Amino acid sequence: MSLTIKAHIAAHFNLNLRTAKQTKLTDYNVKIRPKPIYHSNQLIAFQPKMSAAVKSASSAIKSSLIEPDGGVLVDLVVPESERGLRTTEAESMPRVKLTKIDLEWVHVISEGWASPLRGFMRENEYLQSLHFNCLRMKDGSIVNMSLPIVLAIDDETKERIGSSTNVALLGPTGDLIGILRSIEIYKHNKEERIARTWGTTAAGLPYVEEVITPAGNWLVGGDLEVLKPIKYNDGLDHYRLSPQQLRKEFDNRQADAIFAFQLRNPIHNGHALLMNDTRRRLLEMGYKNPILLLHPLGGFTKADDVPLDVRMEQHSKVLEDGVLDPETTIVSIFPSPMHYAGPTEVQWHAKARINAGANFYIVGRDPAGMGHPTEKRDLYDPDHGKKVLSMALGLEKLNILPFRVGIIVHFNSSKH
Amino acid sequence: MSLTIKAHIAAHFNLNLRTAKQTKLTDYNVKIRPKPIYHSNQLIAFQPKMSAAVKSASSAIKSSLIEPDGGVLVDLVVPESERGLRTTEAESMPRVKLTKIDLEWVHVISEGWASPLRGFMRENEYLQSLHFNCLRMKDGSIVNMSLPIVLAIDDETKERIGSSTNVALLGPTGDLIGILRSIEIYKHNKEERIARTWGTTAAGLPYVEEVITPAGNWLVGGDLEVLKPIKYNDGLDHYRLSPQQLRKEFDNRQADAIFAFQLRNPIHNGHALLMNDTRRRLLEMGYKNPILLLHPLGGFTKADDVPLDVRMEQHSKVLEDGVLDPETTIVSIFPSPMHYAGPTEVQWHAKARINAGANFYIVGRDPAGMGHPTEKRDLYDPDHGKKVLSMALGLEKLNILPFRVGIIVHFNSSKH
Repeated sequence: MSLTIKAHIAAHFNLNLRTAKQTKLTDYNVKIRPKPIYHSNQLIAFQPKMSAAVKSASSAIKSSLIEPDGGVLVDLVVPESERGLRTTEAESMPRVKLTKIDLEWVHVISEGWASPLRGFMRENEYLQSLHFNCLRMKDGSIVNMSLPIVLAIDDETKERIGSSTNVALLGPTGDLIGILRSIEIYKHNKEERIARTWGTTAAGLPYVEEVITPAGNWLVGGDLEVLKPIKYNDGLDHYRLSPQQLRKEFDNRQADAIFAFQLRNPIHNGHALLMNDTRRRLLEMGYKNPILLLHPLGGFTKADDVPLDVRMEQHSKVLEDGVLDPETTIVSIFPSPMHYAGPTEVQWHAKARINAGANFYIVGRDPAGMGHPTEKRDLYDPDHGKKVLSMALGLEKLNILPFRVGIIVHFNSSKH
Repeated sequence: MSLTIKAHIAAHFNLNLRTAKQTKLTDYNVKIRPKPIYHSNQLIAFQPKMSAAVKSASSAIKSSLIEPDGGVLVDLVVPESERGLRTTEAESMPRVKLTKIDLEWVHVISEGWASPLRGFMRENEYLQSLHFNCLRMKDGSIVNMSLPIVLAIDDETKERIGSSTNVALLGPTGDLIGILRSIEIYKHNKEERIARTWGTTAAGLPYVEEVITPAGNWLVGGDLEVLKPIKYNDGLDHYRLSPQQLRKEFDNRQADAIFAFQLRNPIHNGHALLMNDTRRRLLEMGYKNPILLLHPLGGFTKADDVPLDVRMEQHSKVLEDGVLDPETTIVSIFPSPMHYAGPTEVQWHAKARINAGANFYIVGRDPAGMGHPTEKRDLYDPDHGKKVLSMALGLEKLNILPFRVGIIVHFNSSKH
C-alpha cells in the first residue's frame, strides 16, 4: 500500500453511548484534514510517564475499572517458585507441538485477554462460541466469546496422547511452554467451524489458509498453565502489556474512563484527532481523566498488511509529534492473531479490551473486514460490525463508540 | 425408505432434567421390541376426547402452562370485523407475492409459534438470529431465535415497493393474505445466511435449493397482519392447532406437564413406547397429568421424506391401536417448513413448542440432521443437536429429554 495518504479525509464521528453518565449524545460530525504522517523515522519506544504522587498513592487506590469477564482476571502463568516442579512433571507427559499462531493464543489465554477462559476450549465451550458467540457462566451470567479459541492436533498426536489426561505444550522451536490439564479431545469439523465463524467457506481466507487448512482433524481442550510469560524477543516486548499490567497502569493514572482503539494497519493523524476528540467529549460528559488505550494488534496478520514493527514505529511518531498526549495515552500491543472475521471477530476485539480495563470501545467502518476472497465485494456489509457489536451478548457493559471515515476516501487504514 | 422396520431397537432413554420437581433423575434404560406398524389403513382423524367436567371448569382454571417467549402469545390474525377495512386498505399497497414456503412462514408467525416475533425479521432481528441464535428483548431478557425467519424479494419487487412503508402480501395463487407494515428492506447475503445457519455452503441443501437460491437479493421485514387463519384445504387442517388452541386444550385437560415430540418421519411403536415411558416417569416425578404433544412437522420437507398425509395416517394408526392413550395425547401438525439445519434448527423446534405450552421437549439423535450433501458422512455430529439444545440461550426454562435409538439400528425414522 501507499505510504502517503493522498486524499484528505471526511470523517464522521458518531458517539452512541448506552450508559454514559446521565448524558445522552446523538451524532456529531468532525471534519478534519490530516497532513501526511508516514515517515521512515526509526522506532522510538514510548515509555509512559507517571507522576510520583500518583505512583505513591496507587497502592491505596481502590480500582474503579470495569470488571473483567467472569469477575476475575485470569492469570495462568505459573509462579516462579513452582516452575522447576512443573517442568519436571511436564517431562513425563505426551507432547503437543504448537505452531507460531498456537503460541500467540497461549499468550492471549495465559494473560487473561479471554477471561474467563482458562485454556483452549473444550467441546462445551467450543459449541457455545460457535452457536451463540458467548459462554454461559455457572451463575447464569453470559460473557461474550465469539471466536473459537482452540488447539488442533493431528491423528498421530491424538494417538500418542492416548488416554493421558495432561499434555505438555512445546513451542515451535521445541522448548517447553506449558501444560494443558484434564484434556478433552473432540472432532475438528473444519468446514463447520469456518462457515459459522466467517459466514463463508470461500477459498482464500487468510487465517483459514494459514491455520485451519493445515491443522489436524482433532481439537484438544483443557486447563492451561504457562511456565513463564510469553516473550518474542523482537524488540517490541516492552509494548506487550498484559491486561493486569494495563489495569495497574490505568489505576496508577487514576483513570475513570478507558477508551480503546484497535488497529491492525497504520495509524494516521485523522485517527489521532478523532482520539483527541473522543477524550474531549468524555471530559464534557463528566469524566475527569479519560485514558486512551491505543492498541495495535500484534499477532498474525495477512501478508499484505503492514508489518508490526513498521506500525509500531509509526505509532511512536504520532506520539512523538505530540498529536496524542503521552500523559493520557497508552500504546500497547494486543497479542491476538487476526481472523479477518468481521462482525464475529470485532466482538472478540472488544471483549478482550474489557478484560484490559476498557469501558469504551471505538469501532470503525468494516471492523476486522476485508475484501471477499473470490468475489469483487467486501466480505462483510461494512455496517454489520458496528451493528453486531452494539447488539452483542455479554458486551452490554461496554460503551460502543462508532466512527466511520467518509466514504469518499478509500484506503486500507480505514480497516481496523 | 423401507416401510417395515426389520431390526429390533435397543433404545436408551436418558432423562436429564434441569428443573424437575425436587427429583433428580439420572439415566435409565428401556429395551423394547416393537412390532412393525406401517400399514396402509386410511386416514382416521383423531378427535381428542374431553370430559364434560373438565370442559365446564376450564373457563375458571388459571393456566399454569409455561409462559410463551416474550410473555405474550403473538396472534396476528385480524379480527373478522376488521377484515373488510384492511382488505380495502391493502388494495392500494404495493404487492409482494409469497411462495408456498413463504406462506408457511406467514402461518407460523401469525399464530405465535415464533413469539415474540411479530412479522418477518428486520435487519436488527436477522443479525441477532444469525450471530447469537436469540433475540434480546427491551427488558434485557433473552429469547431463543435460531433460524432467520425472513421474506426475500427480488430487485423488481423492491423497485415497485419504492418508498412505501406498507405492502400487501399475496398468496401463491394471487389471493390477498395479509399486510406487512413499517417495512425495512435490507440486503440478502445468501452466502452468509447459509454458512451461518447450516455451518456449510455445500451444494444440495434442500431448503437452500428450494428456497434461498431462487430467492431475491433483498429481505423485507415488518409487522405482519393476516386477514384470516391460514388453511390448506388438504383434509388435514383439523390437525393444525394453533399454539393458542393447544394451550386451551392443555388447560381443558388440566395438564400440569406437556412433553412435546417433534417428528418429520413416520412414527413407530418404539417411539410410542418411549412416549408412554416418559409419561410414567413424569407421573413418578410428581406430575399429576402429563400430556403428550405428538407434533409432526407439516411444512416443507425434502423430496425423499415421507409425505405428510401418509405420516398423519400412520399417527392415527398408532393412536387407534391403543399404543398411545388418546386421553393423554394430542396429535397436531407443526406448520413450520424444515431447514435440515441440525443443531441450529432443533432450537427452533424446541422454542416453538414452548410457545405452544410445552415445558418438556424430547430430543433424539441427530435432530434436524441429514447426510452431508456432498460428503459421505452425517452433516452434523449426531450428538451436537442435543448438546447445543441443552446449552441454548433462551431455552433455560424448557426441560430437555434426550433419547437415542441404539446405534445398532440405522433407519431414517431416527431423525426428527
